[in-house]
Amino acid sequence: MAKESFVEQIADIEKDFPQWYTDVVLKTGLVDYGPVKGTMVIRPYGYAIWENIQTEMDARFKATGHKNAYFPLLIPMSYFTKEAEHVEGFAPEVAVVTHAGGEELSEPLAIRPTSETIIGSMYSKWIQSYRDLPVLINQWANVMRWEKTTRPFLRTSEFLWQEGHTAHATEDEAMEETMKMLSVYKEFAENVLAIPVICGRKTEKEKFAGAVATFGMEAMMKDGKSLQSGTTHYLGQNFAKAFDIKFLDKDGVQKHAYTSSWGTSTRMIGALIMAHGDSRGLVLPPKVAPCQVVIVPIAAKKGGVMEACAEIKAKLEKDGVRVIFDETDNSPGWKFNEWEMKGVPLRIELGPRDLEAGKALIFRRDTLEKTEVQLENIGQEIQALLNTVQKDMLEAARKRRDEKIVYANDLKGILKGVEGGNFVKAGWCGCRECEDKVKTETAATARVFAEGETSETCAVCGKKSKHTVIFARAY
Amino acid sequence: MAKESFVEQIADIEKDFPQWYTDVVLKTGLVDYGPVKGTMVIRPYGYAIWENIQTEMDARFKATGHKNAYFPLLIPMSYFTKEAEHVEGFAPEVAVVTHAGGEELSEPLAIRPTSETIIGSMYSKWIQSYRDLPVLINQWANVMRWEKTTRPFLRTSEFLWQEGHTAHATEDEAMEETMKMLSVYKEFAENVLAIPVICGRKTEKEKFAGAVATFGMEAMMKDGKSLQSGTTHYLGQNFAKAFDIKFLDKDGVQKHAYTSSWGTSTRMIGALIMAHGDSRGLVLPPKVAPCQVVIVPIAAKKGGVMEACAEIKAKLEKDGVRVIFDETDNSPGWKFNEWEMKGVPLRIELGPRDLEAGKALIFRRDTLEKTEVQLENIGQEIQALLNTVQKDMLEAARKRRDEKIVYANDLKGILKGVEGGNFVKAGWCGCRECEDKVKTETAATARVFAEGETSETCAVCGKKSKHTVIFARAY
Repeated sequence: MAKESFVEQIADIEKDFPQWYTDVVLKTGLVDYGPVKGTMVIRPYGYAIWENIQTEMDARFKATGHKNAYFPLLIPMSYFTKEAEHVEGFAPEVAVVTHAGGEELSEPLAIRPTSETIIGSMYSKWIQSYRDLPVLINQWANVMRWEKTTRPFLRTSEFLWQEGHTAHATEDEAMEETMKMLSVYKEFAENVLAIPVICGRKTEKEKFAGAVATFGMEAMMKDGKSLQSGTTHYLGQNFAKAFDIKFLDKDGVQKHAYTSSWGTSTRMIGALIMAHGDSRGLVLPPKVAPCQVVIVPIAAKKGGVMEACAEIKAKLEKDGVRVIFDETDNSPGWKFNEWEMKGVPLRIELGPRDLEAGKALIFRRDTLEKTEVQLENIGQEIQALLNTVQKDMLEAARKRRDEKIVYANDLKGILKGVEGGNFVKAGWCGCRECEDKVKTETAATARVFAEGETSETCAVCGKKSKHTVIFARAY
Repeated sequence: MAKESFVEQIADIEKDFPQWYTDVVLKTGLVDYGPVKGTMVIRPYGYAIWENIQTEMDARFKATGHKNAYFPLLIPMSYFTKEAEHVEGFAPEVAVVTHAGGEELSEPLAIRPTSETIIGSMYSKWIQSYRDLPVLINQWANVMRWEKTTRPFLRTSEFLWQEGHTAHATEDEAMEETMKMLSVYKEFAENVLAIPVICGRKTEKEKFAGAVATFGMEAMMKDGKSLQSGTTHYLGQNFAKAFDIKFLDKDGVQKHAYTSSWGTSTRMIGALIMAHGDSRGLVLPPKVAPCQVVIVPIAAKKGGVMEACAEIKAKLEKDGVRVIFDETDNSPGWKFNEWEMKGVPLRIELGPRDLEAGKALIFRRDTLEKTEVQLENIGQEIQALLNTVQKDMLEAARKRRDEKIVYANDLKGILKGVEGGNFVKAGWCGCRECEDKVKTETAATARVFAEGETSETCAVCGKKSKHTVIFARAY
């Protein structure tokens, strides 16, 4: 009995979204809390999603000419002070090693919160001539930022990420790289995570500490809040000057390089959960689902059902589908609940009568629809359906989001918009005071500048608008 | 001119092996020193080897039923004290975080030197019933051990590794897992790294701190020293008792689980270098070589050579070969030197006369032999040669090693053997005093018990021998 009521253990998504999130991440086995406050254990089901993300992303990085490398975890504290804005942004969040090997260290060492400084120090050794440029390196690593309030995937003291760090001979090339990686992120978010994103520039207040300009991609969660899912930074010569990254150019002149950096993290798993999940739990897009298809036998003791299920499993595996055949003793109803909660995109149900009729039922997790398929075509049907689900999930998310983008001409309009769970587009004069006022009055922040759009006047002060900004409450 | 003498920058492998090693790792772009003493930066060429190692190993772990997960970097110091031997072994090498987020921590946190303790604490939460067993988890991660003397790949304060951690209902199952993973490591070392290894049990002195029994695989380097390349540990109930990993067994009785752990690291890259390298530099086996084939055009300005090289490159890439077409302006001689130093298994040389005759020269890095192949068959020829090189490298290494395994009946014999750069097999009574005496007198340590062999008497004290042991000087 307890087992049949599995799903009811998840809080109501409509009534208590934060509790629903916590229930889902813990009860589907994605994560657990680590013993140190603010840390998470990524359990096999969660880590398998991360592995699929890594595989898809890494292929995109390599296709755009990047190579992976690994830089040390520990950074001398003095490195942070070399870039003034950078130290201000990161020093307060740093975890510090003061003792090692039984002795006090002569200089305290920071656990990397991000690696611009240590990578900058190495690039200054490796880059001598224009022939050494561009340097296009990515790192998959753990990083640490000591946060007061933490939530699994969204904000944890340690998280996993990738950080790209590139150096170029010219401003144009570095800026081109910054924008190229933003488009790589966007294509990835949409075609792999099935999450539509809005890309654009960040305000001075919201930009990366030490960057000239930061660009971000923002995804709408089901509660209408925004989740920053990736950022790229044009660093100009800031870090090149701080770490002396210089090269002899073709014209015989010593110049500082131009650098960029860009990152995405396990936060994206949080985006997946909150962009697609529903009252039954997770809804995972096929491309990142650890299990794409689950096979559930019905009244299985009769007439070769188990054998037929095993055959389907073998066939699908041969086609490269990630499939589980649930052979446990649990009831079909319990299995349905469990795998729905875990967000498996497709379920095949097969009973003796189906088998006799040469067909099976397929349940789609995203639309909750059931269709009948002929067993002889099941391989092609599953492949086609996985592609359809992947595409449909993006379109459904886009539709949901687009219905929740509204316009506002004044502060009251912004407040009403975000209280209704919307992204609000509004004009902004560009001054910090107006940006802060939106935050204070509405708890919304400027997410990114909207592309190709301009409002006439600032929604806060009424002066001439400089940018149209997406305002939203954010994770 | 300077460029032509590239290779001479590497120290003579016969005269100064340690300097040769340092020159090779730095000058081929595998690593660089990090800013903090004892740390290394794994540069793209070195990291690409690690990626190939990871891919091959991870497939083997998954094929044997293991799943990946990720546990936190920081471990409360108090966890180490829960297992008495473990804290003694690891506490002296630990790096400690005392401050974070601008405040002093209430309890200092260790950066993981290995994760038995934190994983044990999670397993005690996750394991309740025999139905939850076995738990078969692997983690790819960075770890830190503060060492006094460090060398890139061989011993660095931070390194990358994988650590498997499993829990079982019975002693037999845990021991079976321990031995299974040792055989997975051995198969990997031989068939992927082309390094023959001797597997066996470690002495009490050499075993993992906290284990009941440790098993290791030892590889012979070209200087006759041994490099421990992987270990598996049967942990009995030591960690289960320390961390309260208990389950309700089928018979209704609460029992402690039996656990195992096993690890290999970036150290294996050091083994690759020193097991295969020669006077010209690296010699990489095809399965882990970042570049398997380099194409060098000769007198390239004439008659379509560049186009033909580009065609060969495209063809090989289509076959899944990792190939570089060296189109730079450097002389062929300089290119030969550079790619030989970098250990690329095969080189294709193509000049106008070769092209006219419909053939190309192929140079094998491992044997330094050149063979002529017909251009029309070059795809198959390269595939076949890569397989041959992979196999021959293992056999050559095995032959070198087997010629340097000698027997000794007394301490003088052990000393003579290890001074001659050999592994020495000798009888051992099993007592710590005799083991220590070998170390003091010969600088050799007991590497592993030799399989299926017994000597009559202990080479040190002359009493009855308990095990035949491989003694060697070791990294």
